[in-house]
Amino acid sequence: MNPNSELGPALQSLIERAEQALDRHLPPAGQSPTELHRAMRYAVLGGGKRLRPLLVYATAHALGEDGPQLDAAACAVELIHAYSLVHDDLPAMDDDALRRGRPTCHVVFGEAMAILAGDALQALAFGILAEDAARRTDAATGIAMLRALGHACGAEGMAGGQALDLAAVGQTLTLGELEHMHACKTGALIRASVQLGALAAGTDEGTLQALDRYAHAVGLAFQVRDDILDVEGESAVIGKTAGKDAAAAKPTFPSIIGLDASRARLAELTDTALAAFAPLGDRAVLLEELARYAAHRRY
Amino acid sequence: MNPNSELGPALQSLIERAEQALDRHLPPAGQSPTELHRAMRYAVLGGGKRLRPLLVYATAHALGEDGPQLDAAACAVELIHAYSLVHDDLPAMDDDALRRGRPTCHVVFGEAMAILAGDALQALAFGILAEDAARRTDAATGIAMLRALGHACGAEGMAGGQALDLAAVGQTLTLGELEHMHACKTGALIRASVQLGALAAGTDEGTLQALDRYAHAVGLAFQVRDDILDVEGESAVIGKTAGKDAAAAKPTFPSIIGLDASRARLAELTDTALAAFAPLGDRAVLLEELARYAAHRRY
Repeated sequence: MNPNSELGPALQSLIERAEQALDRHLPPAGQSPTELHRAMRYAVLGGGKRLRPLLVYATAHALGEDGPQLDAAACAVELIHAYSLVHDDLPAMDDDALRRGRPTCHVVFGEAMAILAGDALQALAFGILAEDAARRTDAATGIAMLRALGHACGAEGMAGGQALDLAAVGQTLTLGELEHMHACKTGALIRASVQLGALAAGTDEGTLQALDRYAHAVGLAFQVRDDILDVEGESAVIGKTAGKDAAAAKPTFPSIIGLDASRARLAELTDTALAAFAPLGDRAVLLEELARYAAHRRY
Repeated sequence: MNPNSELGPALQSLIERAEQALDRHLPPAGQSPTELHRAMRYAVLGGGKRLRPLLVYATAHALGEDGPQLDAAACAVELIHAYSLVHDDLPAMDDDALRRGRPTCHVVFGEAMAILAGDALQALAFGILAEDAARRTDAATGIAMLRALGHACGAEGMAGGQALDLAAVGQTLTLGELEHMHACKTGALIRASVQLGALAAGTDEGTLQALDRYAHAVGLAFQVRDDILDVEGESAVIGKTAGKDAAAAKPTFPSIIGLDASRARLAELTDTALAAFAPLGDRAVLLEELARYAAHRRY
C-alpha cells in the first residue's frame, strides 16, 4: 500500500516536493564513493511516510510561509529520521530485514556500509542546515534551527530514547515510562520538525509553545497507532514485520494498558493536538489533516 | 606509554584543558539514560592523543587567540573523532577489541549501545558548535564553523574516506589512491580542526590557505607514521593491536611503497607542513611542535 494514498492532494504534493529536495541534496549515485552514496540514497529515497518534512511544511504553511527556504529544514529532519532507521534495523539493534516493504539497508549493502551511510546522513542533515543558515539574512534563525536539531538528535533526544528502548526490552514499564521513552525516541525529532517549520516561518513565543503541544501529542499518537497496527496489521500492508514488538518482548501501549485503553489514549492525544492549534484557525488545515492521519492511518 | 609524554608542557596543558572541556560538555554518567552517557564518556575520556583539539588551540594561538571560546570547537572535533573510532572498532567494521590500551566501547557496553553512543557523540559535536554560534557576537563565524564541520564529517569527508577504506581491503591501491583515502578518512577532520581554530581566532584568506596546506600535510604525515608504527611498533606501546593492518589485508604506505620510501614521504610531508606556516613566524611554535610530533611519535 502506498502511504501517500491516505493523504489529501495538498500533502501528497508536499511529499513530492520533499522527495525532490532530498534527491537534490543527496550525493549522486554515480560519484565516488559510489557504494556509500548508493546506500545513502537507498535509505532515504525508498518511500516512507515523510511525516517529518510534512510537519515542517504544514507548520510553516499555518504561519503563512510556503517558500523554497523550507526545503533545507524538511530535508534535514528526514535525513535524521532515515539514518535512525538504518541504524535501528542493524542486527545488533532491532535486527530487521524488511523496511518500507524492501530489504533493509544492511541487507543490501552490508552492515559496515549501513553504519557509515547512517553516519553520513546525520552529518549531511547538519551540513544542509548550516548551508541554509549561511544563506539566510537572519543568521540567528539559522542558528536556532541548528540548535533545535542538535537537541533533538542527541542523548537527551532521539539517541537517548533509543537507549531507553534498548534497556526496556523484557522489562515491565509503566505507561509514563513508555510515553517518556517515545517522547525521546521519536517525539524529539517530530517536535523539532514543527519547531524548524515555525522558526523558518517566523512566529511569536506563544504560538511556538502551542505548536510544541501539538507536536508532542501528534508524535505520541503516531506511536500509539504504530503499536496498535503492530497487533492488528498485516506485514504486507504496514510494510514491515507485523507482531515483531511482541516477539521481541518490547513494551507497547497494548501490552501495558490493553488495546481498548490504547485506542482511548489515541483519541485523547488527537483531541489535545487539535485543540493546540485552534488559535491559528483555518490556516492550520494541513496540521489538522496530519493529526487525523497520525491517529487513523492503516499503514 | 602515556602519549602526552612525547609533548612539551604547553601542549600537555592544552590536552588537560581539552579534557576538562570534554568532561563539562559530555552528559553526566549519573543521569538517565545512564548506560548511554557512560558509553559516551568511556569512548571520549579514556585517553587519546587529542591531536584535533591541540590543532584547534595551536592554530588559534598562532593567530594570537587563546580565549575560552576555543573550547567548543576543540570539543566538537574530538567528539567527532571519538565517535568515528567507536563505529570503526565495531565487529562489522574493523572488529577491534583494543583501543588506547583498553577494551573498545562495544566490548564493554555491547554493540547496540556503542552504535548509539557514536550517533549521540556526533549529534553532540554539532550541538556544541550550534550553542557556541548562538553565543558569538559574530554569527557568520559560528555558521562558517558549522559548515566546516559538516563538510568534514560527511560523504565527501570522513564517512566517505571510511567507505573508500572498506572498499580497499584486499585491493591493490596506487600511492595516490591511498593518500586520497586518508585525506578523506582522517585528513578532512584534521583540516577542519585547523580551520575551526583559524575561524575562531579570525584571519585572512591567504593565511587560511597556508594553514590548510599545513593541516593537509600533517594529517597525511600522521597516517604515514601510523602505518610505519603498525609495522615496527609493539601493541603494548601503541595501545592497539600491532600488525593488524597486514593481517586485515589493508593497503598501507609500507605495503605499497616500502618502509624506506614511506620514511622519505614522511620527511617530505613534514617539510611541507613546516614551510606552510613559516609566514606566521615564532607564534606558530605549537603548530611546529605538532608537525614534528606527527612525524616522530612512537605511540
